[in-house]
Amino acid sequence: MNISTEDILRELGSIVRTDKDTLRAYSSDKWFASALPQAVALPSSAEEVCRVLRFASRFGVPVTPRGAGVGYVGGCVPVHGGIVLSTERMNRIIEISPEDGVAVVEPGVLTADLQSACSKLGWFYPPDPASRKESSIGGNIATNAGGPRCLKYGVTRSYVLGLQVALADGRLLTCGGRTHKNKQGFDLVGLFCGSEGLLGIITRATLRLIPAPQARGALRATFSCFSDSAGTVQQILQTGHLPCALEIADAFTLDAARRHLGTDALPPDARGHLIVEIDGHRDSVNHELNELRELISSHGGTQIVSATTEEEIESIWELRRGFSESLKATGLTKLNEDVVIPRSQLVEFVNFCTSLREESGIPIACFGHAGDGNIHTNIMIPRDDEGNERRAEAESLLHRLFAWVLSHSGSITGEHGIGLAKAPWFPSSIGSVAMDTHHAIKHALDPTGILNPGKLNL
Amino acid sequence: MNISTEDILRELGSIVRTDKDTLRAYSSDKWFASALPQAVALPSSAEEVCRVLRFASRFGVPVTPRGAGVGYVGGCVPVHGGIVLSTERMNRIIEISPEDGVAVVEPGVLTADLQSACSKLGWFYPPDPASRKESSIGGNIATNAGGPRCLKYGVTRSYVLGLQVALADGRLLTCGGRTHKNKQGFDLVGLFCGSEGLLGIITRATLRLIPAPQARGALRATFSCFSDSAGTVQQILQTGHLPCALEIADAFTLDAARRHLGTDALPPDARGHLIVEIDGHRDSVNHELNELRELISSHGGTQIVSATTEEEIESIWELRRGFSESLKATGLTKLNEDVVIPRSQLVEFVNFCTSLREESGIPIACFGHAGDGNIHTNIMIPRDDEGNERRAEAESLLHRLFAWVLSHSGSITGEHGIGLAKAPWFPSSIGSVAMDTHHAIKHALDPTGILNPGKLNL
Repeated sequence: MNISTEDILRELGSIVRTDKDTLRAYSSDKWFASALPQAVALPSSAEEVCRVLRFASRFGVPVTPRGAGVGYVGGCVPVHGGIVLSTERMNRIIEISPEDGVAVVEPGVLTADLQSACSKLGWFYPPDPASRKESSIGGNIATNAGGPRCLKYGVTRSYVLGLQVALADGRLLTCGGRTHKNKQGFDLVGLFCGSEGLLGIITRATLRLIPAPQARGALRATFSCFSDSAGTVQQILQTGHLPCALEIADAFTLDAARRHLGTDALPPDARGHLIVEIDGHRDSVNHELNELRELISSHGGTQIVSATTEEEIESIWELRRGFSESLKATGLTKLNEDVVIPRSQLVEFVNFCTSLREESGIPIACFGHAGDGNIHTNIMIPRDDEGNERRAEAESLLHRLFAWVLSHSGSITGEHGIGLAKAPWFPSSIGSVAMDTHHAIKHALDPTGILNPGKLNL
Repeated sequence: MNISTEDILRELGSIVRTDKDTLRAYSSDKWFASALPQAVALPSSAEEVCRVLRFASRFGVPVTPRGAGVGYVGGCVPVHGGIVLSTERMNRIIEISPEDGVAVVEPGVLTADLQSACSKLGWFYPPDPASRKESSIGGNIATNAGGPRCLKYGVTRSYVLGLQVALADGRLLTCGGRTHKNKQGFDLVGLFCGSEGLLGIITRATLRLIPAPQARGALRATFSCFSDSAGTVQQILQTGHLPCALEIADAFTLDAARRHLGTDALPPDARGHLIVEIDGHRDSVNHELNELRELISSHGGTQIVSATTEEEIESIWELRRGFSESLKATGLTKLNEDVVIPRSQLVEFVNFCTSLREESGIPIACFGHAGDGNIHTNIMIPRDDEGNERRAEAESLLHRLFAWVLSHSGSITGEHGIGLAKAPWFPSSIGSVAMDTHHAIKHALDPTGILNPGKLNL
């Protein structure tokens, strides 16, 4: 890249900014890494996105696409400089059509805003990442975002019917469409979902909506040992229940939460915790809650709280969010790893993390989406006597964590993606043939490699 | 290709057959086209599939992959000769694990066999193509098969967690895995789903299972006009119901069924027909059926029959299958087009088909999956006085049908795929940038073009 900032300004004029404050503001996400770009592009339309890409591909300028910048793996850090392209100004909900069961949106729309707009019409956009109030649809699609509700409703991919994508060379691709089924050729929509900005930039999305469930309900319970909570998860599914969410937490997380929240919701002998959320027909939710309460109780659950109003349900999730906050409140940086394991391995996995913690003296907390085995595993980076982070030690635990997960048919990421943070482990976790296939596809769609260079080890 | 049948036999020995009867048996699917291959490979393992592909790629021999051969678009017709590779011998259900919510299968397993094996354990594999008793999982994945239940449960893609795929050069790729979430890189699993044998051959699949719903129920009703049935579809969804299936039929189909089946289930004044299937908690299904009955009745539905036992539900679907048989019973070849339109266009679409029928004198029958707008549109090829098919006339209607569908934001195929049958319309239906993207991906994964040549216009 031999292009000067002046050249960029001359070519892209009002689309870009190059002042220091802006460059700094677009240098990182929620992960620790950061790098300054040469310029930040803030296009207002697909045509402006294409203009940036035509220019960038002509001169080989790296372009790092950015949604709302709330990722956990450094996916939008411009490690090769060049241009950060944020779609935040493209934030219109273009249409919500209950008749067709679709919403058409620009990529900068915040997930929670779309959800609430749909909800007002009695419709439902299920993808529900924890970041939904600050993450955008474009970023959700680029990372194929998950969340607690995936157990029943699936990931973001399941709700993307059509995409308009600006390709590396600046051409605009339309794939999929407005219909709920579409078998016209290869699944290009799926290919761009979760491609982490390496194959194209999403400029518009047509999303699938479903009728809002008539009723919701939730339960929470504590257990005197973790394996009882994991066994209950199995029993719930085995008896024909498909909850929206099944969330567990380990003893370490509960201890931290008890200390931080000072809540009597978590008695000192609670070594396991379970949240179950269900939805469905208004006549079934209460019946199902009663059945689940009985089942949980017969499997060792105590202090069972059931919730049927929005407020009561929200207060259960408030406690769940408290787990994460309690860990943050320690003041330690946490490596928040979203590993996934086959559901049957839950107890073994938590036992492994416990032994890792005991052996290393480094705090590790596990909680998350038990239903699909997606456990957020937080390694808390300790500090030495001078207050410096002992990152190398924490990283060595990461190696062992990932090795365990992979040797148990797991995945090193279920929601956050690879980005920069997991790039070192990526080739070995997918194997050489899959890595070659990634290279071939990347080269096919971005032959000059300008899109989000430095990520995924590609 | 300058390879002789003797060379193939010498290299691939017991894997292949070259006798005339076998060649003929593997020359076609349910579409009308056929072509003889040089040899039929019947591998028993992934390694044997790879052996065939290593040989074929070395000598540039076309390889046409084949599932159970029940496709509707000529997708497994070996139009370029070479080798037909059928995975029918790889038909083991390797594992069903309720604990992990997965099944691991070879591609030749019949869909209905897997469903019934899961059902015995209280688990559920939802993808439900009409062909499920004769179609195989490998073929379902290669075509991303749909079916009536997609409205609630989605297409085959939503149930594929991991794949083992033999690539064109004979290397074995593993992608995805055993976990219910996986964000390790690009969505290769999705890319192979629906790739119609052009990118690789599926040799093993890990599938997602969900707990079997506790109860099912169904309703059927007739309407005095089609638009009332379509309006009822909208009302059902608008009031917070998400049925598994919503199936409609037009007046022409009902007339044919009445004549053929001689049933009093379809009174002469029935110009519209609706089937609703629901499932869920055992306490809600009856309540929901009552609500739906009331709703259907208030929107003009009459002769409402509700079903709660497996037998009663089956007899409703039996009538639905009768629609298709009634058309076959005319003795005319039907061009069964699985077009998809946005749900709001149902009435306009059926009106368009009616006018096309009246204008041309060629019978056209519409019925199918109203919930996702996927309407099976059957153009019945008329015969001239000498009994010859007037195919050109029927094809000209196809042009007009597809043009209407595309101009109304629809798709020319929702389930069957492109194959040979829809290849002429494929480039114009997806546009030149999407077509270029298809070429780029095809070239990246199959640079010598040996996999299923002649399909999708690639």
